[in-house]
Amino acid sequence: MNDTFLKACRGEQTDYTPIWMMRQAGRYLPEYQAVRGNVTFLELCKNPELCVEVTLQPIDLLNMDAAILFSDILIPMEAMGTPLMFHEGKGPIFPEPIRTQDAVNRLRVPDPDAETGFVMETIRLLRRELNVPLIGFSGAPFTLATYLIEGGSSKVFWETKKMMFTAPELFHALMDKITECTSLYLQAQARAGAQALQIFDSWAGVLAPCDFEEFALPYVQRIINDLKDTGLPIIYFANNGATLLDLSVQSGADVIGLDWRINIGEAITRVGEKAVQGNIDPFALLLPEAKLRKRIQGILDGARDAHGHIFNLGHGIHQFTPPAQAKLAVDLVHELSAR
Amino acid sequence: MNDTFLKACRGEQTDYTPIWMMRQAGRYLPEYQAVRGNVTFLELCKNPELCVEVTLQPIDLLNMDAAILFSDILIPMEAMGTPLMFHEGKGPIFPEPIRTQDAVNRLRVPDPDAETGFVMETIRLLRRELNVPLIGFSGAPFTLATYLIEGGSSKVFWETKKMMFTAPELFHALMDKITECTSLYLQAQARAGAQALQIFDSWAGVLAPCDFEEFALPYVQRIINDLKDTGLPIIYFANNGATLLDLSVQSGADVIGLDWRINIGEAITRVGEKAVQGNIDPFALLLPEAKLRKRIQGILDGARDAHGHIFNLGHGIHQFTPPAQAKLAVDLVHELSAR
Repeated sequence: MNDTFLKACRGEQTDYTPIWMMRQAGRYLPEYQAVRGNVTFLELCKNPELCVEVTLQPIDLLNMDAAILFSDILIPMEAMGTPLMFHEGKGPIFPEPIRTQDAVNRLRVPDPDAETGFVMETIRLLRRELNVPLIGFSGAPFTLATYLIEGGSSKVFWETKKMMFTAPELFHALMDKITECTSLYLQAQARAGAQALQIFDSWAGVLAPCDFEEFALPYVQRIINDLKDTGLPIIYFANNGATLLDLSVQSGADVIGLDWRINIGEAITRVGEKAVQGNIDPFALLLPEAKLRKRIQGILDGARDAHGHIFNLGHGIHQFTPPAQAKLAVDLVHELSAR
Repeated sequence: MNDTFLKACRGEQTDYTPIWMMRQAGRYLPEYQAVRGNVTFLELCKNPELCVEVTLQPIDLLNMDAAILFSDILIPMEAMGTPLMFHEGKGPIFPEPIRTQDAVNRLRVPDPDAETGFVMETIRLLRRELNVPLIGFSGAPFTLATYLIEGGSSKVFWETKKMMFTAPELFHALMDKITECTSLYLQAQARAGAQALQIFDSWAGVLAPCDFEEFALPYVQRIINDLKDTGLPIIYFANNGATLLDLSVQSGADVIGLDWRINIGEAITRVGEKAVQGNIDPFALLLPEAKLRKRIQGILDGARDAHGHIFNLGHGIHQFTPPAQAKLAVDLVHELSAR
C-alpha cells in the first residue's frame, strides 16, 4: 500500500512528493473514451463496474499516488429531486432552476446509501482493487447552489448573486438544505471506505471575500465539522480562490487546494500550518521536457516549507492533453522530489 | 470642469472620491438600447455622432465623474486586417484565427488616424461636449492576442496557451505586432484629446504569475513607456489579477484597476504608492439601500490610505442592473466620501 498521499495530507515526512491530477479519470485518456463511447455520462456515473474501471485507468497507466472516485458533483443534487441532464459539449442542465421558497421546500434530503448507492458501491469495489488511497468528493454548497439557481453552468452568476443580494433568506434556506445533503453524502462515502475527502468549490472565486465569508464559508465549515469523527483528511479546493485563502483556512480542512494563479510559496505563507495541494497550470503539461522539468522544480522549491505538499494541477486536466505529457509530469515530480 | 478624477489619478487631494463605472455607456441604459436598436454594434462603434451620444448618457443621467469613450477593444484588431464579426448574444468572432507565422506576417500595423479615424473623431467631438475628463482605452496585448488566437471569446484559452507553451517565438511575434498597433492607437487617442488612458487586460487573470511576467507584462510596459511623453495618467486593469498585483505595479501605470475579488485595503498594501481604481462587485449594485451604503462605506474605509482612489466597479456593469441602482451608488459614493 502506497500511503504517501495520506502522509502528506497529515503533514508527515514522505520519501517523495505524491501526485495526482484533478479529472485524472477523464477524456484525455483514450482508455476512458473507449468506455465512455458505449454509455452516456450519467449512465457511466451510475454504473459501479465502469466507474471502477475508469477510476483505475490513471493509476495503472500514469502511476498516480492517489485515486479519486469517478463521479460528478451534481449526482447528489439530482437525488434531491431536481431533474438533471448532460448535453454533449454543453455541460449540465437543470431544466427546473431553484429560485423560489416553494422550489427549495420541494427539494428532498436523500438517504445517500439508498439513493446514491451506486457511488458507495463504487467506493467499496475500488478499495478491493487499489494499492493507493481513494479520495471521495463532493461539491461545496455554494458551487452546487449556483448550478441549481442558474439551471446549469454560468459565466457571470447573475441569478445566484441576485438571490444573494435581494433575497438572502431564500439563498440561505437553499444552502442549508444542500449542506445537509452534502454532509450526509460525504459521511456515507467515509463509511463506504473513502480514505480522504475533497470538497470542490469550483465557483467560490466569483465571490468578494466579504460575500464568501457570509454566504459560502459557514456551510463548508459545517460539513467539515460534521466529518470530524471520520478522522479522514479533508481537502478544500476553492478554485480561483487566491484572495480567499485566509478564509479558506478557517474552513477546518486539513489540506488547502491551490489553483495555478498564485505562487505556491506565497500561498503557503498565507495558509500557515496546513498542507497544500497544487498547483501547476494544467496547460503547462504541454511544455517541452526541459521547460516542464524547470516548472515542476519551481513548484517543488516553492513548496519547500509546506506542512505537507501534494502535487496536483491547479485545475482539471484538459481533454486535449497528451497522456504521455501527463505521464512525464508524474515521473518528473517523483524524480525531482525524491529525498 | 470637474477634474476630481484626474486629481485622484495623480494621487492629489480631492473633495470627494470620484466615481465612474466600466461599461457605463451600455445596455443597462434604455437610452443606450434606443440608439442601439437602429444599428449593429459595429456600426455604432464606427459612427462618431452616435458614439458621442451614448458616451454622454451616463454622465448626464447618472452624474459620473469621468467619461469613457464608447468603443470596443477589438476595433484596432480589425484594422490590422482580421475580419471581425459580432453575433448577437455570442460576442466577437474572428473567423480566421491567427495561429501561424504566415498569419502573423499578414497582419498590418494600421495608421490609427487613417484607419480608425472614427475613434479619434469621437474623441475630438466629445471634448467639446464634456465637463468631466475623457478616458480613452485599448485592450492589453495579451487579451487582444487571445481573441485573435482563439477566434473569439474562450473559456479556457487552450489555443492561446498551446501557442505560448509549444511555440513561444510565434506567440511573441504576434504580441510584438499587436503591441506596436496598440501603442500607436493610444498615442493617437492622446493626440485627439483623451485625458487619461485605460488598458484593459480582461484575460490576464488566466495566467500564472510566472507566465504573466514572461508573456504579457513586458508588452504592457512597452506601451506605457511609449506613452510617457503624453503626460496622461495611465490606468492598467488586469481583471482577476489579485495575484498579479505586485507585477502589475511594474507596468509603469499610474493607476491600478482592481476587480472585486480582493479586499481593497489588502490590494492597496500591495500596490504601494500608486492610485487604485475599484472595486465593488457589479452585482452588489442590486443590494437594498442600507446594505449598499454599508458596502460602499466599507470600500471607502478600506481605501483610506490609498495614494488616490477612483471608485469603480470591479468589472463592467451588468446589462440587467436597474439604472436607478447605479445612480444610487454614484450618489452614495459622493455623499459618503465628501470631505
